[in-house]
Amino acid sequence: MSPLMNRVTSRVMMAMLSLMATVSSVEAEGIGSRVFVVERETESLAIYDYQARRLWPKRISGLGDMRHATMIFSSDLRYGYLATRNGKVSRIDLEKLKIAGNVFTSQNSIDNAISQDARFLAVAEYIPGGLTILDAQSLKVLKRHEAFFDNAGKQLSSRVTGIVDAPGNRFVCTLIEGQEIWILDAKDPAFPILNKIKTRRSMPYDAMITPDGRFYLVGHMDSEFVSVLDLTQPEKGVREISLRDPKKTYERGAPMKLPHMASWAVAKDRVFVPLIGETRLAVLNRWTWAFENSVELRGHPVYAVRAPTETEIWVSFSGEKDDAFVQVIDAATLKVKRTIEVGERIYHMDFTPRGAYVLVSANKANKLVLVNANTYAIEDIQTVRSPSGIFGVWRAFQVGL
Amino acid sequence: MSPLMNRVTSRVMMAMLSLMATVSSVEAEGIGSRVFVVERETESLAIYDYQARRLWPKRISGLGDMRHATMIFSSDLRYGYLATRNGKVSRIDLEKLKIAGNVFTSQNSIDNAISQDARFLAVAEYIPGGLTILDAQSLKVLKRHEAFFDNAGKQLSSRVTGIVDAPGNRFVCTLIEGQEIWILDAKDPAFPILNKIKTRRSMPYDAMITPDGRFYLVGHMDSEFVSVLDLTQPEKGVREISLRDPKKTYERGAPMKLPHMASWAVAKDRVFVPLIGETRLAVLNRWTWAFENSVELRGHPVYAVRAPTETEIWVSFSGEKDDAFVQVIDAATLKVKRTIEVGERIYHMDFTPRGAYVLVSANKANKLVLVNANTYAIEDIQTVRSPSGIFGVWRAFQVGL
Repeated sequence: MSPLMNRVTSRVMMAMLSLMATVSSVEAEGIGSRVFVVERETESLAIYDYQARRLWPKRISGLGDMRHATMIFSSDLRYGYLATRNGKVSRIDLEKLKIAGNVFTSQNSIDNAISQDARFLAVAEYIPGGLTILDAQSLKVLKRHEAFFDNAGKQLSSRVTGIVDAPGNRFVCTLIEGQEIWILDAKDPAFPILNKIKTRRSMPYDAMITPDGRFYLVGHMDSEFVSVLDLTQPEKGVREISLRDPKKTYERGAPMKLPHMASWAVAKDRVFVPLIGETRLAVLNRWTWAFENSVELRGHPVYAVRAPTETEIWVSFSGEKDDAFVQVIDAATLKVKRTIEVGERIYHMDFTPRGAYVLVSANKANKLVLVNANTYAIEDIQTVRSPSGIFGVWRAFQVGL
Repeated sequence: MSPLMNRVTSRVMMAMLSLMATVSSVEAEGIGSRVFVVERETESLAIYDYQARRLWPKRISGLGDMRHATMIFSSDLRYGYLATRNGKVSRIDLEKLKIAGNVFTSQNSIDNAISQDARFLAVAEYIPGGLTILDAQSLKVLKRHEAFFDNAGKQLSSRVTGIVDAPGNRFVCTLIEGQEIWILDAKDPAFPILNKIKTRRSMPYDAMITPDGRFYLVGHMDSEFVSVLDLTQPEKGVREISLRDPKKTYERGAPMKLPHMASWAVAKDRVFVPLIGETRLAVLNRWTWAFENSVELRGHPVYAVRAPTETEIWVSFSGEKDDAFVQVIDAATLKVKRTIEVGERIYHMDFTPRGAYVLVSANKANKLVLVNANTYAIEDIQTVRSPSGIFGVWRAFQVGL
């Protein structure tokens, strides 16, 4: 069998092949490019298909208080699960785009996660504080961990936040008033707390996990310090890292309050950290957590999102002067390589899985915007109502999302 | 609004909540945990749902010669595309699990890829050699690049292999006899070849791209050398790296023939390379490509697959004595931490997206095996016919797969 063939034969073959294609005529849309956009003021989700560039004509409504709503997805892409601020978890059928059950787990919850075996949900609760474990199929409450802490001899309930799935089929969360990180075993039907790790600083108030599932990072209210827990050796406890730039001078006592932690970007050997109150990203070493550098920006950064190639960091801003813009940072040179005007009050950004596009919600402009990540051109704009979080179904396949 | 609440109130609330769950009763399966398994001898695909642990009762048949069949997926998860050795590309409806069109692109093709914007397919052809670009919706041939090379004044057709998608909405492939790497622009309707890069070594015969889309690695027949192309600066050409362990002595002229390149594992700063004819993995530095170390194994390695956490490398073997076993390497210490007996003649392995399980095809045993990646226990075994490649739909969301 020879691989060699002359030009004429090959041309004839190509002409033949074009005639031979047989395709079924009915077109339909798949669910892999569906994106759920939180409409903050109307208790609803808008649905956008970035491949078809189509906004679904109907929204999903009646979902509850959407301030800080988070959505997770089952690994079979059958369901999404939305946790809202009034304690309601709604299950969304990803194919039919309808509500397929709901449950109140508390009066006020902040965050949810799905176990790596896709069998259980964990919901972080504010009122009453604690952690609720649900069966992902039946939505039945299987376990509730109270998050008590001692206040002058009285047992009080701590708010819980920062719930994520972690390697080893574990859940990890943070007790705000309890000043503790918990690691739970989702393999055991009793969902025991495997580790309770104290943070030395008070009020750990939000958290994230690195994309490889290795480190759990916890921010503290009004503090320049972050607690870092290595999930491969939790018994060693947290170490503290500072976000202070040693080359800069600070006014005495100036707080470096941390933004929402999920806004950190991890790219190759670096972590990019937006700092509220400053016009820079701090750049830390991913392995030693040492401060490496600062990236100066046009305004106060809010979100830093890495490209799937880990070559770029896209940053959004707070403040009327800057919040319509995104700056693109080269992750190797640490230079701003592009500034893009997208729309007023950008609330969230996310890359599509292979990195071809970035989805941006412009809250005040009531726009969902699709930006080409190669050309930086805006390729689609859809009108949505006060958009906030953007949740693509592919998050089902990423640790900690 | 106080976050604090006493124990009694919280218990009462939990009892109430359990009664309030409302769930629709109909259960169905999603498509996100579907896995297509190449049945090598029967021109068919078996379909397994690893979340439901269920083998689909019907297989998809009549697909063509399945030796080295590869399957890719559209980003909306509407379709999979299977390229087979007799030049037939079949489109598979991922929801209905039926053939939804097919086309012959040549008499013999080896590999396919989907553009990052999901609009185009590229098929690497052996007979006649070249690259075929198809419309992913209509399966129409849009372009055919002949892969001619000069042989004593005569233009002959080169086999093409190693086709992958790459950042910037590009395709990259390798001309075996033509001794060239091509980079194509999928943004331009003419699909121009942006770069033609010569390899200094002859017979570049398979290739892969690193998971971040940065480097394209090309193996050469009967050679210890690998050509590495940095896709961010292709104009600099390839550099050559050797897989020889400088601490070992080799018999003069002993060839270090490379295995199929997609079997390399990239984890953190290291690349793990199975070496045919030796009982070790070579460990290279991911950034400098310098040789770092060797990992001694029980037999001749075939596939090395990284865990999504990048903490472990799972290795399969050739040879009757070893081919039923998988060895698990700690990616940090480079020690073998576990040996698992799975089934005779292991052909392929793949992790589920968050790393909870590993799917293994045991060709001679006619088994598809689900291994728990945390406990290393075999949790499910299904009978399939001479299984080979395992293609989970989540590959839609990964560069180069």
